[in-house]
Amino acid sequence: MTLAGGRLRHTVAFTLRHQADSGEERLFLEAAARLAAIPGVEAFEILREVSPKNDYRFGISMEFADAAAYAGYNEHPDHIRFVAERWVPEVSEFLELDYAR
Amino acid sequence: MTLAGGRLRHTVAFTLRHQADSGEERLFLEAAARLAAIPGVEAFEILREVSPKNDYRFGISMEFADAAAYAGYNEHPDHIRFVAERWVPEVSEFLELDYAR
Repeated sequence: MTLAGGRLRHTVAFTLRHQADSGEERLFLEAAARLAAIPGVEAFEILREVSPKNDYRFGISMEFADAAAYAGYNEHPDHIRFVAERWVPEVSEFLELDYAR
Repeated sequence: MTLAGGRLRHTVAFTLRHQADSGEERLFLEAAARLAAIPGVEAFEILREVSPKNDYRFGISMEFADAAAYAGYNEHPDHIRFVAERWVPEVSEFLELDYAR
């Protein structure tokens, strides 16, 4: 992976309120995976966070061609609904990190 | 970018004690870029952190084929020297996040 000039990599590390390996955890991750279908989203990944140096358990990473594509994702109704209905009630801790070259 | 099974993506978000856009900042980033030459390091990137939602200003991302390659990097004398001589004195805040599939 290398991030081309002008592109943005939006990442978030997070922990769920659900028990590890529970059905609720699986359903949340399945719902999160559907964010990949929102226009503008590229290189979408759901990852496990495995460092013993922090308490986050998952990560999501995606790339956008530019700031306009990122804004389009943020404002997309499917993203807004996901944040309200799944993210806010089910995520206990998170940190967003956005990268550019 | 997609992370193949078994691979690890080691990332660190950080802030320097140096003034933004200073010569000291540039020299630190140049020294950090030389970590890419350590055996086992793949997909090495130095990035700017641009989210207004946190105070980190930079990121480094690299990938390893497996845990043994990651351990080899951690224990490599060039890495140990960089941490002692540059990272500890020049970095004010950081967070490591390591991802697997």
